[in-house]
Amino acid sequence: MKISPLAPACFPDLPPIRGIRLTTARCGMKYHGRDDLMAMLIDPDSNVAGVFTQSETAAAAIRWNREKCRNGRARAIITNAGNANAFTGKQGMRDVISLCAGFASVIGAKVDDVLMASTGVIGEPLDCACFTAEFDTLAMSDDLGWLAAANAIRTTDTFAKGAGKTCKIDGRTVQICGIAKGSGMVAPNMATMLGFIATDAAIAPDTLQALLIAATKRSFNAITVDSDTSTSDSVFLVATGAAANAEVESPNDPRLADFCTALDHVMQDLAKQVVCDGEGASKFITIDVCGAQNEMSAHKIAMSIANSPLVKTATAGGDANWGRIVMAVGKAGQFIDQSRLTIAIGGFTIAENGGRVEGFDEAPVAEHMAGDNIAIEVRVGEGPGTARVWTCDFTHGYISINADYRS
Amino acid sequence: MKISPLAPACFPDLPPIRGIRLTTARCGMKYHGRDDLMAMLIDPDSNVAGVFTQSETAAAAIRWNREKCRNGRARAIITNAGNANAFTGKQGMRDVISLCAGFASVIGAKVDDVLMASTGVIGEPLDCACFTAEFDTLAMSDDLGWLAAANAIRTTDTFAKGAGKTCKIDGRTVQICGIAKGSGMVAPNMATMLGFIATDAAIAPDTLQALLIAATKRSFNAITVDSDTSTSDSVFLVATGAAANAEVESPNDPRLADFCTALDHVMQDLAKQVVCDGEGASKFITIDVCGAQNEMSAHKIAMSIANSPLVKTATAGGDANWGRIVMAVGKAGQFIDQSRLTIAIGGFTIAENGGRVEGFDEAPVAEHMAGDNIAIEVRVGEGPGTARVWTCDFTHGYISINADYRS
Repeated sequence: MKISPLAPACFPDLPPIRGIRLTTARCGMKYHGRDDLMAMLIDPDSNVAGVFTQSETAAAAIRWNREKCRNGRARAIITNAGNANAFTGKQGMRDVISLCAGFASVIGAKVDDVLMASTGVIGEPLDCACFTAEFDTLAMSDDLGWLAAANAIRTTDTFAKGAGKTCKIDGRTVQICGIAKGSGMVAPNMATMLGFIATDAAIAPDTLQALLIAATKRSFNAITVDSDTSTSDSVFLVATGAAANAEVESPNDPRLADFCTALDHVMQDLAKQVVCDGEGASKFITIDVCGAQNEMSAHKIAMSIANSPLVKTATAGGDANWGRIVMAVGKAGQFIDQSRLTIAIGGFTIAENGGRVEGFDEAPVAEHMAGDNIAIEVRVGEGPGTARVWTCDFTHGYISINADYRS
Repeated sequence: MKISPLAPACFPDLPPIRGIRLTTARCGMKYHGRDDLMAMLIDPDSNVAGVFTQSETAAAAIRWNREKCRNGRARAIITNAGNANAFTGKQGMRDVISLCAGFASVIGAKVDDVLMASTGVIGEPLDCACFTAEFDTLAMSDDLGWLAAANAIRTTDTFAKGAGKTCKIDGRTVQICGIAKGSGMVAPNMATMLGFIATDAAIAPDTLQALLIAATKRSFNAITVDSDTSTSDSVFLVATGAAANAEVESPNDPRLADFCTALDHVMQDLAKQVVCDGEGASKFITIDVCGAQNEMSAHKIAMSIANSPLVKTATAGGDANWGRIVMAVGKAGQFIDQSRLTIAIGGFTIAENGGRVEGFDEAPVAEHMAGDNIAIEVRVGEGPGTARVWTCDFTHGYISINADYRS
């Protein structure tokens, strides 16, 4: 598979997080000649948070995780790539329970302490036997590091996605590292395809959950590739406490300021990498909306632009077709003041106050559109609402990837 | 331009409607070597109804028509192809008024009696002079018939779209004929791109409007090509009364039964032709949803499937990827009962009661998917809500058409 032209130059150098161990194995459920199973093994006393897809047809593992994550504890998250175990009826849930119970017994934990993530084709029964056969390998391996883990969870991804940041809590150095996968069916609704983030900070479970929800809103929920929402979206955040700071017990604790900035950085970095690996993507697009009635309204307008096939194909063609942006603003179903509508591409104002600027020169905009990093800014009125979302263009590559084989 | 493979064999043989005259002219605003202006000239005492886009960035002509249509009267509808006169600021509205006033004076009518429809690129100022220069031709020509009119309103359309039906009111024979244009930016929100329908029945203005709204819901509002909504969507329905039936004054009048069936037929025929001309379309898709909580919920689920790029690309590839249908149902934001979810393609049940049917044989489904007329049926529970929508697949052709030049 050809690597996305928007891929970063290399996988970042991510340190291990004390208190977790990342292992992989290959079961050949769908992919061959590569690892397709991953486990994050978590020391006792760590806290765990998770956000999951809001899809009405969520996969069996999602329903399991939603319930078990409420405890704020887990000893392992086991993951397979190639089969989403979604829409697999009662057998799907029986398989999740049996796999979690089986892995729990191998690592000496309770079934409730094992979470599970599955990604891949929807509607096919899971082959549990080949997964179970690798339990010992997954449980016993040394830590293989973030890159191996990021590779094992890939499906149509063309590159492994990782990000990390160091920050301080109470003067103590704290690490945050994470990996993600996703390239199509990406319009997350509370999460992306799959994300696994770990920190050695000591943070109480409820606080960790609140931090994850807030950071997801500004990262994985601010991206879209094709407006389609996966049945398997999951993002996990594990805090091992190995950094030995005094446990933080409120999301509003001022000691978290630096940590929150770093968490935003890691999660936005991962989210943007998912966009950069958008199926067939050739251009990365940042969309800023301001002047909306409120933040939710701004987000809906930004997503309407980001999901418009006509805006995305125009971008693919390097065409500064701002008329299609006007159309996408109009169809969002949000109040706007057309007489204040202003559109800029690449920092050049094309239209303002409801019409094209006089003497508009398209040449510099065309030059910006020829690049692979496109910036669209839209003002829709005088309200306080702002939003930023990221997406990619819509090319022949997307059609080829999705029309030519079953993913 | 290559004609859509889904185009009907020929344009139907549509009789003239007594009381209207269809004329065309060429102004070269964007297209050359073809007519690009159309006028429907309407006898006095005719009644007129209209439905228009709900876009917040509706074109100037839409705002004019919304107000003038309230009178239920019009003497002409003038139309240009190639420029939508949308997002053209105050000048855009001044141009509409000046064109309608100019044409009114040529035909000896009041400015309020001229409606206008524009379709084409968004954000470019309208060249009024070249339009005005053709007013005499448009006003004086003999009736050129439905085919000439349907050709003059085309933009990216690859074929002219027309439909007609004869019915009875009070034992008198009544004609309904119509034309439409549209092939991209088609997810109408109260109307399609442009539709002009006329009947010689005598129907009171309020009744005519009510009939048009109801029939639009079941036709133009039940189609989508790319989830994008035009700034110019308009459908007009003119009733000249030339058939001399006693004027019908209530939409619930039992004398209308046959007329309503015929109007549905004409409007659904036109709407399906728009889908068949969907940019790049190679397959026509009918989606039926039942068992939803109510009709609106069923419609949202059906549209979620119809607008899913992953469902549409799978269809293009002839892949019965029903997992993507599960995904699209799940993301619709509507309550469903996953344990009752049932999916059939081409009449073959693939999944029922939340999982794949035992011993499922994909061969006959694959054969159906290889055709160009795809039927998807989904049951989402035990509720009374049903909906039917039409769409097309998503191919390389769509990308080529929309990435390669400005439309």
